[in-house]
Amino acid sequence: PKKQPRPKAETPRGFRDYFGHEVSERAEMLRAITEVYHRYGFDPLETSAVETVEALGKFLPDVDRPNEGVFAWQEEAESEGAPATWLALRYDLTAPLARVFAQHRLNLPTPYRRYAVGPVWRNEKPGPGRFRQFYQCDADTVGSGNVAADAEICMMLADAFEATGIGRDDVAIRINNRKVLNGILSKLYGLVTANAAPAGEGRDQDWDQWSAGVLRTVDKYDKVGIDGVRQLLTSGRKDQSGAFIDGQGLTPNEADMVLAFLQSGRSTSAETIAQLRDIVADVDAGREGVDELETIAELLEAQGYGGRALIDPSVVRGLGYYTGPVFEAELTFEITDEDGRRRQFGSVAGGGRYDDLVKRFTGQAVPATGISIGVDRLLAALRAIGRAGDGSAAGPVVILALERDAMAGYQAMCAELRNAGIRAEVFLGGGNMGKQLKYADRRAAPIAVIEGTEEREQGLVQLKDLVLGAKLSAEIETREEWTEQPAQRSVPRGDLVSAIKAMLSGST
Amino acid sequence: PKKQPRPKAETPRGFRDYFGHEVSERAEMLRAITEVYHRYGFDPLETSAVETVEALGKFLPDVDRPNEGVFAWQEEAESEGAPATWLALRYDLTAPLARVFAQHRLNLPTPYRRYAVGPVWRNEKPGPGRFRQFYQCDADTVGSGNVAADAEICMMLADAFEATGIGRDDVAIRINNRKVLNGILSKLYGLVTANAAPAGEGRDQDWDQWSAGVLRTVDKYDKVGIDGVRQLLTSGRKDQSGAFIDGQGLTPNEADMVLAFLQSGRSTSAETIAQLRDIVADVDAGREGVDELETIAELLEAQGYGGRALIDPSVVRGLGYYTGPVFEAELTFEITDEDGRRRQFGSVAGGGRYDDLVKRFTGQAVPATGISIGVDRLLAALRAIGRAGDGSAAGPVVILALERDAMAGYQAMCAELRNAGIRAEVFLGGGNMGKQLKYADRRAAPIAVIEGTEEREQGLVQLKDLVLGAKLSAEIETREEWTEQPAQRSVPRGDLVSAIKAMLSGST
Repeated sequence: PKKQPRPKAETPRGFRDYFGHEVSERAEMLRAITEVYHRYGFDPLETSAVETVEALGKFLPDVDRPNEGVFAWQEEAESEGAPATWLALRYDLTAPLARVFAQHRLNLPTPYRRYAVGPVWRNEKPGPGRFRQFYQCDADTVGSGNVAADAEICMMLADAFEATGIGRDDVAIRINNRKVLNGILSKLYGLVTANAAPAGEGRDQDWDQWSAGVLRTVDKYDKVGIDGVRQLLTSGRKDQSGAFIDGQGLTPNEADMVLAFLQSGRSTSAETIAQLRDIVADVDAGREGVDELETIAELLEAQGYGGRALIDPSVVRGLGYYTGPVFEAELTFEITDEDGRRRQFGSVAGGGRYDDLVKRFTGQAVPATGISIGVDRLLAALRAIGRAGDGSAAGPVVILALERDAMAGYQAMCAELRNAGIRAEVFLGGGNMGKQLKYADRRAAPIAVIEGTEEREQGLVQLKDLVLGAKLSAEIETREEWTEQPAQRSVPRGDLVSAIKAMLSGST
Repeated sequence: PKKQPRPKAETPRGFRDYFGHEVSERAEMLRAITEVYHRYGFDPLETSAVETVEALGKFLPDVDRPNEGVFAWQEEAESEGAPATWLALRYDLTAPLARVFAQHRLNLPTPYRRYAVGPVWRNEKPGPGRFRQFYQCDADTVGSGNVAADAEICMMLADAFEATGIGRDDVAIRINNRKVLNGILSKLYGLVTANAAPAGEGRDQDWDQWSAGVLRTVDKYDKVGIDGVRQLLTSGRKDQSGAFIDGQGLTPNEADMVLAFLQSGRSTSAETIAQLRDIVADVDAGREGVDELETIAELLEAQGYGGRALIDPSVVRGLGYYTGPVFEAELTFEITDEDGRRRQFGSVAGGGRYDDLVKRFTGQAVPATGISIGVDRLLAALRAIGRAGDGSAAGPVVILALERDAMAGYQAMCAELRNAGIRAEVFLGGGNMGKQLKYADRRAAPIAVIEGTEEREQGLVQLKDLVLGAKLSAEIETREEWTEQPAQRSVPRGDLVSAIKAMLSGST
């Protein structure tokens, strides 16, 4: 056989592994969130990771680069000459939900409330902290056009954050309605096209192209501020790198209509809504949007969520598929970023109403609304404020295996501890006491249990407090040095479990 | 824009979705298992779903059909002219563990005990109940050559089954050692090659080929019985379909050595080991294997697991990579299969020692041992004996939304119930009471809450017991019919929560 070179032991570019507490802390956070979702009547759904490219609808498989954006491959045809199917890893949890609802709608309750948790994959250029596989946690209500469903999503989100340990003052849920902005934009488009010179510069774009450009610009409000948006809506501006970004070509007066909308937020939802009513007074679609916001605000107020979820016209959400209310959740506490600057933590969840996703499959519009939590960002936030993990990820009590013949006895101690609900293990590698204690340190073990011949003959075990020991932080090489340490004690073998329980609870 | 045909709303061939209790019951079972693993000192690990084909080592990407067995695709080169990388979805959790240990070995404790839970993907022909994405739940100890690690895996597996609700009498963990069989086979190979005529029929195969053929045959013991194995080891046999399967070409005397090993199981591990000692008396590798089995049996006996995990020489495990002890867990209770026949449920977990997987990457042998639970099969078993799910997957209390203007009041009731820890939702679709009650049925709601104008004016709510109602199973179309049903009661609005709590606990 030919000799093959050794394979490299590496994750593919942009992928990573999660170890120990990284896994358990995320699981714990997601459990807290999904318990809230469950209480709200949402059912879990786990779709397959693989979808047909056709169902994902992201692109057509006959383009030059089928892997643009998603990881895709061609399925072997079932029979000779059968058309080839392209498969791909899902890039979010919403597209599969639309497919599931279209496929199973006759057997699902309507409205269908579901939550989903799992990895999604993006075939994008990886960067620092930017991976090609990451978790999403979504909740959606499919089949209800009632804005009470949108209000419910916002209340549930507020409860979910609270369940993870984030204080009410530390999170702001902000709500807008795409219909209001669309109303303003359609009025504006009427003005723009009426004013346009025939084949005028950039003013002959169709509505889709034009409104998408303006929406993209407005969505940059968080980054570039109100003056930046004004420049980008009109004649353009230089970005941080010095590159010039073309403007959308609005006149200053036209831009002011958009800016007035963006700046119509007030300290209460009721005041904001009054403000919005003025702005859209003569735009039908806009008024409908404001009415919806008012209903949502009333429902939130009635349930006591008025202060936790606010109407805010500056929320845009870039995604083109939203058709009504849109939501965004921001953590408002400050953290120190990589550059040592204090800044607000920022957005950790977003969503809104999208009434057209199921229609792709069935031809019938199905109203739907939902929220997606950025799992990794929220977990990072919990870590930043010391709320990730309940300590159950702590290391096990490690029983040193100093004499090979005594293994059954070590295992017996271990079984006693486990039966008492204490996480415990026997060292199963090779090496002297020093090496075994180093192993225990690496395991973050709170206690090492030591029984040599001498102890066994006396019916004793030695318990070494490794937390205290770490403070003393002496390098231990010999038995003699070790027994001089104060962080250890000798107890009767029969007291093993009770003594360790006492040490773990910190009562000694 | 061109009109595209509507996409089909379908999962790809061989994939499926999991709904509601299917998701929560599996999660609950896995939580019970991984809590045991955690108590034994095992840490969670979640590797990326995507690996380089090189790291998986399943095949080389330059073969004609890169998708053979796995789902694979070619990564776009990072720069022009750079070598193309092939990526693939993991097909099990062991290959990624070997990669992780090789990659991170300097930062991981040794021995490294880890568990992993997650989907794996196989590009195979799907069949009934046979999917191309399925869950595995693995636990492995990497870096310990001590057979105490193997014994620990078996004890942990026994505890894990018990934690899921399977009785001690309903599961048999059986242990063998590949070294014993290999010892017998190498002795036999010596005989075979010594006896072989030059270029004799089939007797000139090399050791790898020859032993793999015999192992594959022995692994069929469960299916074809002892006589079937005898035929397959010697001259061959007709299978059920009538096709003739060639034999391995052993003489009857040679075959008897293998058959004696397979049949050396006795009712206690100690007796079986005595039996094995006789058989391998003159084979060094075989004696070493029996010594290991004896140590494992003693450790199990000392911890009280002697009756729950037995030495059984008929366990082979097909996988070529096992190098020492091998384990298999069978559920011994009977179920009625699809053909209406009573049969034992069969194997739900398997594993063993594999000392060469990490070596592929590093060149250094790293001993490792582990177990993999077939998650779907175990869950099916729990369902068969009524132990899947703790009822937390029950439907929510559904509050009917009979009057659109009263939505805030319905939401308030819902919030009260949720705050009391009761799963509840307001109906958010459209339709009359009959439609809303049908929705509640479809949701498996235990109770429907009904408040119309009349009730509101009287300060009452109607609670309809849908469990009892389902028994009465009358089609309800009108309000009048419904109020005559005995399965509903009227309670003061202020007693909503306490009345529902009482109904849910079955105390009324």
